[in-house]
Amino acid sequence: MSEYMARTLFFTSLLYRTTTEHKRAVAEFCGNVELCRLTEQVVFSDPYKVSEYNHWTSPYLDRDAEAVRNDNILKLEVAELKSMFCERAQALIHGDLHTGSVMVTHDSTQVIDPEFAYYGPMGFDVGAFLGNLILAFFAQDGHADEGNDRKAYKEWILRTLEDTWNLFHKKFTALWDEHKDGSGEAYLPAIYNNSELQLLVKQKFMKDLFHDSLGFGAAKMIRRIVGVAHVADFESITDASKRAVCERRALDFAKVLLKERRKFQAITEVVLAIQKLHA
Amino acid sequence: MSEYMARTLFFTSLLYRTTTEHKRAVAEFCGNVELCRLTEQVVFSDPYKVSEYNHWTSPYLDRDAEAVRNDNILKLEVAELKSMFCERAQALIHGDLHTGSVMVTHDSTQVIDPEFAYYGPMGFDVGAFLGNLILAFFAQDGHADEGNDRKAYKEWILRTLEDTWNLFHKKFTALWDEHKDGSGEAYLPAIYNNSELQLLVKQKFMKDLFHDSLGFGAAKMIRRIVGVAHVADFESITDASKRAVCERRALDFAKVLLKERRKFQAITEVVLAIQKLHA
Repeated sequence: MSEYMARTLFFTSLLYRTTTEHKRAVAEFCGNVELCRLTEQVVFSDPYKVSEYNHWTSPYLDRDAEAVRNDNILKLEVAELKSMFCERAQALIHGDLHTGSVMVTHDSTQVIDPEFAYYGPMGFDVGAFLGNLILAFFAQDGHADEGNDRKAYKEWILRTLEDTWNLFHKKFTALWDEHKDGSGEAYLPAIYNNSELQLLVKQKFMKDLFHDSLGFGAAKMIRRIVGVAHVADFESITDASKRAVCERRALDFAKVLLKERRKFQAITEVVLAIQKLHA
Repeated sequence: MSEYMARTLFFTSLLYRTTTEHKRAVAEFCGNVELCRLTEQVVFSDPYKVSEYNHWTSPYLDRDAEAVRNDNILKLEVAELKSMFCERAQALIHGDLHTGSVMVTHDSTQVIDPEFAYYGPMGFDVGAFLGNLILAFFAQDGHADEGNDRKAYKEWILRTLEDTWNLFHKKFTALWDEHKDGSGEAYLPAIYNNSELQLLVKQKFMKDLFHDSLGFGAAKMIRRIVGVAHVADFESITDASKRAVCERRALDFAKVLLKERRKFQAITEVVLAIQKLHA
């Protein structure tokens, strides 16, 4: 998945393309407005207002859902993410890159369901995938029983979370290095002409992308708990009170992640925060 | 001009429009890629590299122009502004809103030359106008003589700078208030449903727009001193050494403004910084 994200996002961005190619492609995908609107509604709007489409593990999470609707700081931050989703044509994104869109066998990984694709912020794809992994982590306690405490699986999920970002970072910046003297017009080689500066712009770009990814990932976690479509990881916990406990932990973490995403400097800090909350 | 900017930017943004209308309009203006590319080159690229199109008051500013080309932090910040210019479809902007595009009589103000128009960041228009006023301010000492020290005119320019932003802010937020329950989809009334939150989102939006405007304004000042097309305010100073002194002051201020734009909380602070530098 790191390879998929690094390649699709890099090669459709201004790091690789001229602005002429970019604007032509952006215009082409502006037609996909109906599915963008659906995302705007289910990710950035419905969870933050009363909506007939919302549902949650009731009555356990009634007050949690209400708290989301009444959280001014959360809604302020969500507005910034929504603006980015609607206005920023950074790369051709999948637009619905949850783990259910990824088909895996031992020797092959395939991504399906590209109908939401359009030019948007890279962090929306990266965050969708990371957010789904975090949801899966928080769901495991609801599936634990005497025969299997799920501890090893939980550790595997956190390791995968960390590896996914780190590998994505590595592959993305490697593509950037490889093509830095190519036709991409974001950072012209005649201007970004010394290694110190090249490092500076790369660090800034990746830091911003990391924070965008955490923000979008958190927004997608929230909508999977109090919005319209939920995830199998939680839905398959049959005991509702047990499910609610797991969901509340995930929701509380997502709120912190969304509001304080800029405080995280590395994915290890996110993993530590999850472990701390969950101890 | 405040009225013009407030109305054109507000009514073509997601504060007033649905995302369906917005995406359709964005696609339409993606065709104007050649003039966008010209702006990218003359504003965000040429001044920061050796280019046959650049010129400046030589030999006086040779080292100043070289310093611009070697300023890593400046180039890091310029990259962020360029990304915003290329990727962020916030509103239909004029794209070349320097003071020469504004025709004024006693009872009428008309804006001409809309050929650069496309969907871009609002701050590019606001900044272009503010930046031109600041350039005009710094040019006055080159025109002062025994008969006219230009002091009153300089004060008028700074007052106009302050009034332009403040009036723009007032008119823009008034339009927002007036249409807050309309069809604009950035901040849905069902979500942004209390006055504290409405104030928060407005403050954040206007603060970000202010900083964008200062950044773009500074970038346009720099390109008017060491890039291809200069301004009459400076060009009409016939004594080259005198002109260079004025231009250097403007350039030094623009560099500070671009790099430290986020430190300014209000336009009065910008005016104070100009006065301090110029004392």
